[in-house]
Amino acid sequence: MKKHIAILPGDGIGPEVCEAATKVLSEIGKMYQHQFEFTFADLGGVAIDKSGTPLPAETLSVCKQSDAVLLGAVGGPKWDTLPGDQRPEKGLLGLRKELDLFANLRPVTIYDALADASPLKDDIIQGVDLVIVRELTGGLYFGEPRERRGEGKEQLAVDTLVYSRKEIERIVRKGFEFAKIRGGTLTSVDKANVLESSRLWREVVDEVAQDYPDIEYSHMLVDNAAMQLVRNPRQFDVIVTENMFGDILSDEASMITGSLGMLPSASLSQDGPGLFEPIHGSAPDIAGKGVANPLATLSSVVMMLTYAFEMTDEADALAEAINDVLEAGHRTADLTNDASKALSTEEMTNQVIDAL
Amino acid sequence: MKKHIAILPGDGIGPEVCEAATKVLSEIGKMYQHQFEFTFADLGGVAIDKSGTPLPAETLSVCKQSDAVLLGAVGGPKWDTLPGDQRPEKGLLGLRKELDLFANLRPVTIYDALADASPLKDDIIQGVDLVIVRELTGGLYFGEPRERRGEGKEQLAVDTLVYSRKEIERIVRKGFEFAKIRGGTLTSVDKANVLESSRLWREVVDEVAQDYPDIEYSHMLVDNAAMQLVRNPRQFDVIVTENMFGDILSDEASMITGSLGMLPSASLSQDGPGLFEPIHGSAPDIAGKGVANPLATLSSVVMMLTYAFEMTDEADALAEAINDVLEAGHRTADLTNDASKALSTEEMTNQVIDAL
Ligand SMILES: CC(C)[C@H](C(=O)O)[C@@H](O)C(=O)O
Ligand SMILES: CC(C)[C@H](C(=O)O)[C@@H](O)C(=O)O
Repeated sequence: MKKHIAILPGDGIGPEVCEAATKVLSEIGKMYQHQFEFTFADLGGVAIDKSGTPLPAETLSVCKQSDAVLLGAVGGPKWDTLPGDQRPEKGLLGLRKELDLFANLRPVTIYDALADASPLKDDIIQGVDLVIVRELTGGLYFGEPRERRGEGKEQLAVDTLVYSRKEIERIVRKGFEFAKIRGGTLTSVDKANVLESSRLWREVVDEVAQDYPDIEYSHMLVDNAAMQLVRNPRQFDVIVTENMFGDILSDEASMITGSLGMLPSASLSQDGPGLFEPIHGSAPDIAGKGVANPLATLSSVVMMLTYAFEMTDEADALAEAINDVLEAGHRTADLTNDASKALSTEEMTNQVIDAL
Repeated sequence: MKKHIAILPGDGIGPEVCEAATKVLSEIGKMYQHQFEFTFADLGGVAIDKSGTPLPAETLSVCKQSDAVLLGAVGGPKWDTLPGDQRPEKGLLGLRKELDLFANLRPVTIYDALADASPLKDDIIQGVDLVIVRELTGGLYFGEPRERRGEGKEQLAVDTLVYSRKEIERIVRKGFEFAKIRGGTLTSVDKANVLESSRLWREVVDEVAQDYPDIEYSHMLVDNAAMQLVRNPRQFDVIVTENMFGDILSDEASMITGSLGMLPSASLSQDGPGLFEPIHGSAPDIAGKGVANPLATLSSVVMMLTYAFEMTDEADALAEAINDVLEAGHRTADLTNDASKALSTEEMTNQVIDAL
């Protein structure tokens, strides 16, 4: 098969981890007779520097013509003082909206070999295997009005949390679909005792549930969910929630593994190209040193192979290779206290290629 | 001194833990020659049952005439199917607004004797001592419009996140004041890369900070804060944040102790009576059995003595008594796996009184 992949290296360690990904993809292409064609484009800080905008039209068009998008990371202190609408993140938010990437998937799994890194006790995290399905194009992130009103002490700032039934239904359906192919359990997270949007959310979940009689589903308040993720993360299989709650809970959930450098994400639309990216940031402190952990990006490639290309053999092979490399004791600097044993980005990437 | 205390036992285990509190307060009154007068009133489910509304006018007037309010807990499955505006929580939200309780304090500390109960590893939680200062009367909880628009698939639900400079300034000032009497460090949590209200929040924090040159303060994004609370809670001293973020983060933070039955809270206004309550819920499953842990409520009494009455000797004595009882190995059922050793609510209360 032939696939066009848009590569957006972005800022900080983004280019380094993306290089690892293209190398591994090329290898998989050779092994399984696929043609992966890469088109590079700018997003975030690098785009601001080159063309004054975090999401150039050219980048958007490259993405729209692709079969899938791989993103490294965006942002860094260099652009932190720019006004809100000219910052690197704005490029990412714009891309989500333009590609209609309404479903953000963040799986949280524990690699046995890395369980020690978790701040949580062993018996709490053993066997954790959950995925957060976060709504990504609605809610407080995009609602209007969002503005200042008045001046001085009386000045107000307003954001709007708005969801339509349609928006809720499509993400909730994704949640149920994932529950179906996974553990069969769905937890819908809201704040229905306070928010009108959460009450609508809950109604829609109850309606959609009629179509999935085999899925065990329940509602949980977001404050309780924030507790339960720490108390007993194993109780969760699929969590579905709105944009802002998903932002907070998925970062919390990712930290229970202790290894941010390992976790991938996918952002999917109904039928256009999906976007795949590691959940870690641009890590400006280690950028350009060749020491970044490429495994979260390679896991994002696993998700690309699975969800964008339906290449399950290829995906399984890569997932296994990553696991094997860890089991064999290979570590990048973020995963070990023994600096003398730490592999570079390139060495780690080559280990994965060997394991393939 | 003579103090009028409004007691709102509420639902579930509320009456039992409030009984413990009045007993201990009476004892302290005897010891230190104070007169604590208790006036009981209904709030939440019990008020709905008796008078059809979760916050009767009578209750509000009792609270307004008091020097401090003690609340047990509200809510339970019995009232969960009522429409939103008739539910027990609505009574609590109404009380917060009516008494202008804009500053919610939730200290999170680890009792050495109970550190084992934490889901987090020992070296992560040892020495944790933070307080979350949550804005309690603004933001998404009270913003207008909050409504449905349209019908069918196109129906929208809208909530509004609104803050004025004034509202932000008074809570941020509280944050700095607490930092001053505590560790000297303040973390302000927002989502300034997305929300207009957070950008205003950040501006106000930077302004108020000018008045507190000795306080080390920083801004943190809410998703990062949710991670950092798990990764390294010891880094925090005072956290100040808006209503919804505070709801989520304070529940998350409370779980890192593993002992919800221990944690108190205070909700303060500018100069009216404050409200003091345990952070645990009404625990309907164990209600009426006399086994509830009274210590979170007694710690809330410590906060009442401190913040409402400025009785610091009395507060210190009670805090010490609670600690001594735990050090001596006394446990209620929620704190031990050995059911045969579990004290009843009354026995635990008497232990605290003895230790006083
Ligand atoms: C960079 C930021 C706007 C973004 C978000 O809040 O969605 C990030 O935190 C994420 O989760 O991808
Ligand atoms: C009961 C509910 C409305 C309340 C809140 O969200 O504020 C509770 O979770 C709390 O934190 O006191």
